[in-house]
Amino acid sequence: MPGFGWISFTTDYGLADGFVGACHGVIARLAPHVRVIDVTHQVPAGDVRHGALVLAQTLPYLPAAVHVAVVDPGVGTARRPVALVTPGGVLVGPDNGLLPWAGDALGGVTTAVVLTNPRWFADSVSHTFHGRDIFAPVAAELATATALAGVGPVAGGATVPVTEVAAVLSEAGAPVDPAELVRLPEPVVRDGEGWLEAEVLGVDHFGNVQLAAPGARLAALPQRLRVGEHPAVRGETFGDVPEGELVVLVDSAGQVAVAAHRGRAAELLSVTAGALLRIDSHR
Amino acid sequence: MPGFGWISFTTDYGLADGFVGACHGVIARLAPHVRVIDVTHQVPAGDVRHGALVLAQTLPYLPAAVHVAVVDPGVGTARRPVALVTPGGVLVGPDNGLLPWAGDALGGVTTAVVLTNPRWFADSVSHTFHGRDIFAPVAAELATATALAGVGPVAGGATVPVTEVAAVLSEAGAPVDPAELVRLPEPVVRDGEGWLEAEVLGVDHFGNVQLAAPGARLAALPQRLRVGEHPAVRGETFGDVPEGELVVLVDSAGQVAVAAHRGRAAELLSVTAGALLRIDSHR
Amino acid sequence: MPGFGWISFTTDYGLADGFVGACHGVIARLAPHVRVIDVTHQVPAGDVRHGALVLAQTLPYLPAAVHVAVVDPGVGTARRPVALVTPGGVLVGPDNGLLPWAGDALGGVTTAVVLTNPRWFADSVSHTFHGRDIFAPVAAELATATALAGVGPVAGGATVPVTEVAAVLSEAGAPVDPAELVRLPEPVVRDGEGWLEAEVLGVDHFGNVQLAAPGARLAALPQRLRVGEHPAVRGETFGDVPEGELVVLVDSAGQVAVAAHRGRAAELLSVTAGALLRIDSHR
Repeated sequence: MPGFGWISFTTDYGLADGFVGACHGVIARLAPHVRVIDVTHQVPAGDVRHGALVLAQTLPYLPAAVHVAVVDPGVGTARRPVALVTPGGVLVGPDNGLLPWAGDALGGVTTAVVLTNPRWFADSVSHTFHGRDIFAPVAAELATATALAGVGPVAGGATVPVTEVAAVLSEAGAPVDPAELVRLPEPVVRDGEGWLEAEVLGVDHFGNVQLAAPGARLAALPQRLRVGEHPAVRGETFGDVPEGELVVLVDSAGQVAVAAHRGRAAELLSVTAGALLRIDSHR
Repeated sequence: MPGFGWISFTTDYGLADGFVGACHGVIARLAPHVRVIDVTHQVPAGDVRHGALVLAQTLPYLPAAVHVAVVDPGVGTARRPVALVTPGGVLVGPDNGLLPWAGDALGGVTTAVVLTNPRWFADSVSHTFHGRDIFAPVAAELATATALAGVGPVAGGATVPVTEVAAVLSEAGAPVDPAELVRLPEPVVRDGEGWLEAEVLGVDHFGNVQLAAPGARLAALPQRLRVGEHPAVRGETFGDVPEGELVVLVDSAGQVAVAAHRGRAAELLSVTAGALLRIDSHR
Repeated sequence: MPGFGWISFTTDYGLADGFVGACHGVIARLAPHVRVIDVTHQVPAGDVRHGALVLAQTLPYLPAAVHVAVVDPGVGTARRPVALVTPGGVLVGPDNGLLPWAGDALGGVTTAVVLTNPRWFADSVSHTFHGRDIFAPVAAELATATALAGVGPVAGGATVPVTEVAAVLSEAGAPVDPAELVRLPEPVVRDGEGWLEAEVLGVDHFGNVQLAAPGARLAALPQRLRVGEHPAVRGETFGDVPEGELVVLVDSAGQVAVAAHRGRAAELLSVTAGALLRIDSHR
C-alpha cells in the first residue's frame, strides 16, 4: 500500500495517565489504516537530550514511518512545531533540538516545514497538550494524505520518496531551512595516545554507561584499562569479565560503553548522563 | 467495516506481570480482527476513582470502541459485571463506580446490562481475574457479534447506533436501569467572589495538580493569585511564569489545574488526590 | 490466513530505552503482516526464573504465535539461541532455562532447533542485543516463511501443525534433542497431614504471594490456617476475609496463593520470590 502505514511514537508522558492513549485514539480516528509503534514514553520528563538520543539510536531499526516525538517543556510558548522529511521517515515534533540527531541518523533532513495550517490540527488546540492536538493529528493527516496521493515508502521498506512526500507536507505549513532548526550542543569526546575522555550519553535499564565516543575509537585502546579509578577490560560482551567486573565494549548502538557483568556499571562508577568519564590504560 | 473494530483497555494491573498480555491474548483469540488501544494499566491498585477520571478524560478522544476497564478490588464478590451502551462506545467492567463518569463523557448511558450469560465468558472463570475471564471475553464477543450482525460504528467514527448494539448485547445478560448503577460521590467544588475551592482530582506524570473545577470558572479569578500560601499567576501554559513558579490554567482535559514551570506543582503544594485546595486573589 | 499472524514478546528490557521499540521495528520491517502482543518487558533484569514463570502462566491464553522471549544475562557468550516447536506456538530465545516451562504449558516441545543460519539474523549481529539482531529477526522470518509455505495455525486458533512448522524451521539451524535443553531446577513443594510447605514463585503487582503448590492441594487443608505466624482463612477470593486479613486461595494461574484483602500479603509476610512458606492448620 502506498502512503505511510506506520507511525512511531516517543514521548516523556509516562504510562500512568491517559496521555498516550488519547494520542493513540486521535491517530486511530484520523488514520485507521495506520499501525503505531511505541518507542518509549519514559523519556525523563522534559529531558530533550535524552529523547534525542533514544530517537537517533532506535528509529533506524523501524520501517519508514511518520515518527512523532514529544519532549516539549516549552509547549504553548514560541517554540515552533515542525515536520522534517528524511529518507528514513518524517519526524514530527517541537523544534527544540529533539529531532535533528534522528534526522541525521535517518539519512539527513531534505525538507523542514513549520506546522501552521490549523486544518491539520485538532478542531480545538489546547495550550498544554500539543501531542494530542497538533503532533498526532499532523502525523495521522500526513499518513492519510500520502496514502490518498499514492506516495510513500514501499511497504515494509525504509526509503521515503522525499520529494513527493515534501509536496504533500507543504499543505501543512511553510518550509524553513533545515540549517535553522534548533540543535543541541554536541557532546564532548576527546582522545589521545591510549586514553579516551567522553561525556556519558546515558545509562540504560541495565545500568550500562554509554559514552559519546563512537565504537571505532575502542580499537585504539589497550586490553587492560582503567575507567576513572576502576580496573576494566576491553571486550565484546558482558560475559568477557568475571561477575561484578567492568568491561568496555562497543554497545548495540555502536557507541563505546562501560558495563558490569551481572552488575550495574553506572552505580559502580557513580555516574549519570552528562558526566565526563575518562578511560586510560591500566598501570 | 461494520461492528466494533477497536477495543480499549484500562486497568490497575501494572505492566510487570502477564495479566495485560493474557487479556490481549484472549481478545486476539476471540476477535482477531480487533485492534486494542491500551489507555493505561497503571491506575493505582484498587483506586476506582482515579480510574474513573482517566476514563472520562481519555475515552472521548478514542474512536467508538468497546472500552474494557478493570479496577476491581471487589472481584469475585457480589459486585456486578456490567456493560453500558453510549453513543461513544460500550463500557465493560465492574459496577463499582468506575464506568458512569466515562458514560457521561461519551454522551450518556442509553442501556445498561448485567453480564450473566456464561457463553460470553471464558470456559472456566477464575475467582480473581475477571479481566481475563469475563470482561475481555465479553468485549471480544461483542465486537465479533456486532460485526456478524452488521451493526456498529462507521469505521473510525465516534457514533454508535445504540439501539442496534443494545439488541446484540441483550444476549449477554439482563438490562438494568442506568440510574441504579453504582456512582462515586461527586468531588467538592465551591467558589465565590474572587476565590475557588476545589478537590484535587489527581496529579499527573509532570506533577500538575488537576482540580474538580471546570475550566470556565478560571475566568472569574483575577490575574494574580494565591494557591494555598503560594503566589501564582493565572495563565495559559507553563511558560507563562518564570521557572519554578506556579501558574493556574485550564488543562488539556478542560479542568482548572495548577502547574509549576519546569517543576512539580504537587510537591510545591504538598497535595495529593482528594486534598482540598483554595485559590484566592493575591493580597 | 496460513502462517503465523502473531508474535508475542517478553523481555527484561524495561520500557525506558528504545530496546523494545527497535525489536518491534525489526519485526515490522521483516513481517509487516504480523501483529505483536507484548506480554511484559518488566521481568526483573536477568531474572530467568521469573521470566520462565510469566511465560508458562501467560502464553496458554494467547493465540498460537511465535513467542519471542529474552531474559538473557549470558548474551554473547556460549549459551545457544534456540527455537522450540510446540502445539501452542514456537518459542524463540536463549537456551538458559527461560523457555522449557512454557514449552510444557503449551503442550510439550516436539522439535528444538539451535539457531545458526545467519540468513535468518540481522545483517550485522551485535554482541549485546540478540533480541534485536537474532531473536526478533528469526521470529519474523519464521512468520513470513510459514505464511509463504502455507503452513501454520488456523487463524485465531491455538493449534500448530508441528511437523510442517518444524520443516520450515529446519532452515534456521540444526535440531537438538529437547531433553538436552537447559532446564531450571523445579521449585520446592512438600505437604503432609494438614500442612503445606512451598517455595514462593513470585509476588504480583498487587502483593499476592504465589506458591509452587498446584491449586488442587488446597482442598486438603482445613478452613482455618496459619501462614508462617499469621492467621489466615482458606477461601476463593480477596473479599472472603475482612480488610487487611489473609486468605489462601487458588489464583488465576491455578496455583496456591496467599492474598490480603485490600492489602499486600507479601509485605505482611515479609517474603519475596524464592522464600519457603509454610501453611499449617490454625491452632
